Amino acid sequence: MVKKRTAVLLVILAMIIGGGAMLALTNYPIFASSGASSSASASTGLSRVDMNKLNAAVKLIEDNYYKEVDHEKLVTGAINGIVGSLEDPYSAYMPAEQASEFNESIQGSFTGIGAEVELKNEQVTVISPIKGSPAEKAGVQAKDVLLSVDGESLAGLDLQTAVSKIRGPKGSKVTVMIKRPGTQDPIKFEITRSDIKLETVNARMEDGGIGIIEVTQFSTNTGERFKEELSKLEQKGMEGLVIDLRSNPGGLLDVVVDMSKEFVPKGSIIVQEEERGVARKVFRSSGTAKLKDYPVTVLINGGSASASEIMAGALQESAGAKLLGENSFGKGTVQTSVPNELGKGTLLKLTIAKWLTPDAEWIHEKGIKPDEKVSQPDYFTVAPINKEKTWKSDMNNESIKSAQVMLSGLGYDTKRKDGYFDAETKKQVQAFQQAQKMTVSGMIDEKTAVALEAATLEAITDPANDTQLNRAIKELKQGTLAPASNS
Amino acid sequence: MVKKRTAVLLVILAMIIGGGAMLALTNYPIFASSGASSSASASTGLSRVDMNKLNAAVKLIEDNYYKEVDHEKLVTGAINGIVGSLEDPYSAYMPAEQASEFNESIQGSFTGIGAEVELKNEQVTVISPIKGSPAEKAGVQAKDVLLSVDGESLAGLDLQTAVSKIRGPKGSKVTVMIKRPGTQDPIKFEITRSDIKLETVNARMEDGGIGIIEVTQFSTNTGERFKEELSKLEQKGMEGLVIDLRSNPGGLLDVVVDMSKEFVPKGSIIVQEEERGVARKVFRSSGTAKLKDYPVTVLINGGSASASEIMAGALQESAGAKLLGENSFGKGTVQTSVPNELGKGTLLKLTIAKWLTPDAEWIHEKGIKPDEKVSQPDYFTVAPINKEKTWKSDMNNESIKSAQVMLSGLGYDTKRKDGYFDAETKKQVQAFQQAQKMTVSGMIDEKTAVALEAATLEAITDPANDTQLNRAIKELKQGTLAPASNS
Repeated sequence: MVKKRTAVLLVILAMIIGGGAMLALTNYPIFASSGASSSASASTGLSRVDMNKLNAAVKLIEDNYYKEVDHEKLVTGAINGIVGSLEDPYSAYMPAEQASEFNESIQGSFTGIGAEVELKNEQVTVISPIKGSPAEKAGVQAKDVLLSVDGESLAGLDLQTAVSKIRGPKGSKVTVMIKRPGTQDPIKFEITRSDIKLETVNARMEDGGIGIIEVTQFSTNTGERFKEELSKLEQKGMEGLVIDLRSNPGGLLDVVVDMSKEFVPKGSIIVQEEERGVARKVFRSSGTAKLKDYPVTVLINGGSASASEIMAGALQESAGAKLLGENSFGKGTVQTSVPNELGKGTLLKLTIAKWLTPDAEWIHEKGIKPDEKVSQPDYFTVAPINKEKTWKSDMNNESIKSAQVMLSGLGYDTKRKDGYFDAETKKQVQAFQQAQKMTVSGMIDEKTAVALEAATLEAITDPANDTQLNRAIKELKQGTLAPASNS
Repeated sequence: MVKKRTAVLLVILAMIIGGGAMLALTNYPIFASSGASSSASASTGLSRVDMNKLNAAVKLIEDNYYKEVDHEKLVTGAINGIVGSLEDPYSAYMPAEQASEFNESIQGSFTGIGAEVELKNEQVTVISPIKGSPAEKAGVQAKDVLLSVDGESLAGLDLQTAVSKIRGPKGSKVTVMIKRPGTQDPIKFEITRSDIKLETVNARMEDGGIGIIEVTQFSTNTGERFKEELSKLEQKGMEGLVIDLRSNPGGLLDVVVDMSKEFVPKGSIIVQEEERGVARKVFRSSGTAKLKDYPVTVLINGGSASASEIMAGALQESAGAKLLGENSFGKGTVQTSVPNELGKGTLLKLTIAKWLTPDAEWIHEKGIKPDEKVSQPDYFTVAPINKEKTWKSDMNNESIKSAQVMLSGLGYDTKRKDGYFDAETKKQVQAFQQAQKMTVSGMIDEKTAVALEAATLEAITDPANDTQLNRAIKELKQGTLAPASNS
């Protein structure tokens, strides 16, 4: 999962240094140790015959394969194969390195310099330094381009690899060379890495007393931060709340339950859990009977998954909140992470239960339908233009289609968006070029394509174009929605 | 891999009842038993620690996964994971059922009724009964549609599933209901299954003394059949030979070496084999010194793989044959199949060596370049038309593109083939409809699309349009090529 801010256009991967993909919902019932000492059924595990087969496979390969074979890779392959045979995309084995990234992501903290970066024109570029981080204290600024780390060039690296070079143990020093827009020579920074807390909650108050809380994932400290921001907004006399869970891939079950009880009346159901062969477990709100006196709208989209769907379902069915946006992702299972059982530092992420909404719906592979379907403009998800060629009249392909979507989104209505470069498309390309003070060729050359994409990206990041959020705010202002507790 | 005859258009899967995909090159050095009794290095195989890890993984899953788990599936998963970790597409573990299909495919024989079938308009349709087979003796004819087998309908099944229902043990009886074009009622056939030999060699003599031998795969009996047909052609005074290896996925190493020595002079290299840590093994021709006095052209394409590439390489580099067609597939490794080591009936197919051409080229992932590049017309590989909608003027998509390629191939030159439905395309659609005595609408509705595809399929199967073969025949007739032995 990538950050909403930049994920929509051009497949720009944006990640906090130290952040990573996460779609899990873990941390709940870490069960007892397994293996020989397990208290579970004695008839489970590998038989002698099974072990002989696996040994024979490894031996045949090590003795006869045409290339040298790494023994550990074979063993890891076996574990991956065992887990993979479940055909469950949410169960996974992670070797030590991958496991530590996962843990950091779940905890919402890591050790590093604390700069949010993205790959822009194939350069590692700072989106912004995290508040209070070593990067900010050292003077790293938005739009700085990271050239090298400890003398090692970052040119040509993918974002994840670059990020892994910038990160390191707490207290260690790293030398970063930075190119700043407008300055000639690279600038040298010496930064000492420290613990960085990911900001997973962003809040603000709109005109008219409408509060907006964006939750980007459900990490260890997210619940605390959420309640802090919620309380601030309430103290300011909030009259309506938007909880923005769009593109939030999920997180920890106990955290989302804890957050949901702010809205779900005491005793009402937040979520239910169904393990194999065990009676359904019902999570009820332990919140106070004092209910919210303002209406709540929850924003969801196809990237709202797992814990986000638990919160959306709980607030919809047990707290009368309105869901607005697009159908959610559809992940209705609970994982747990089992550390160190399959080798030191390793982690087995295993699906151990289904979860159901308060009304006992299993939304797996279906998602949650919003009460009001509102889509973002089509240019929010447009594919990039191939810039290796110049596109012109009477041509016909996907790049021209993208350009038509972008032009129309920017107000240059091409009428058609099917990829055929007709006279109207040419006219609109000319109008765009005129407005941008470029050579008015009526053809989409590399320069025009770059300008089109830049203008489109700007439009996407402009809050004025966030159709979903604006609709939610407008409805709350009009006061057409009932308070959340009145369901 | 699918049969050349019908694979090119519409993704019609054609397979002999009992045939299957095959890209292997096996049967050569089946090495000694492995496991505890292996004579190879004692330090290979799984350690105690490895075994504990694998056991823990299986146990954790069996005790805690949210759904019931099939134990055998986990063990098979482990073996697949071990083999998969090699990241070699040609090494594979096959459970018993899959292994027996593979063996039949390699051996070039199986037990069944002996009818070559394809899926046509979603019906299992006979291409032709195999000569001398139970199907032929019972009176099954080309174009018969198989409706049911032993009372079980074949409607809606994919070809592989349908075929598996028709096959069965030698001597067993099967009742097949058939719909024959032109007759009203279904016809009932009782057929006794027997051993069927796949025909992997097809030969004929063209005018001007040009012999053509098509080899569809290198199975156990292919060498014998090849020599038989070659000798017949030579006795008829053949003055030039085309060996057609297009879309031949490969087969057995010893078979291709045996076939190649018909052309490679005694003592010259056919192929070389390189195992890990072993001196290169050179396969030389044991053929007679009596060399061919006619030129040889070998046809190859992107589907010519493995054993086909060995033969093409050997004949090009050691027998002066000309390669004509398109770049070959590029599989430069040798597999062996290890039966029963990982469970009764199972098979481990394992890459044990590289093979090199006589001039020591490793063609892996590169393929062999033909001496003369000749492509088939573009409509040979056109995608089918989506028939759910009617395509008309000013529309623009992949289906219209396909239609333009088909129309142009059939002589209705649409000028453009980019998917934009312009005036010229409409004109040519009308011309096609006129010629087909259909309603002249200028739109591509379902009926028009079906007629277009049928006409295209007919054009593809017409030998007159086989550009590659015709070029080879023409050159051999003109006598511009030197005899094969004069390299």
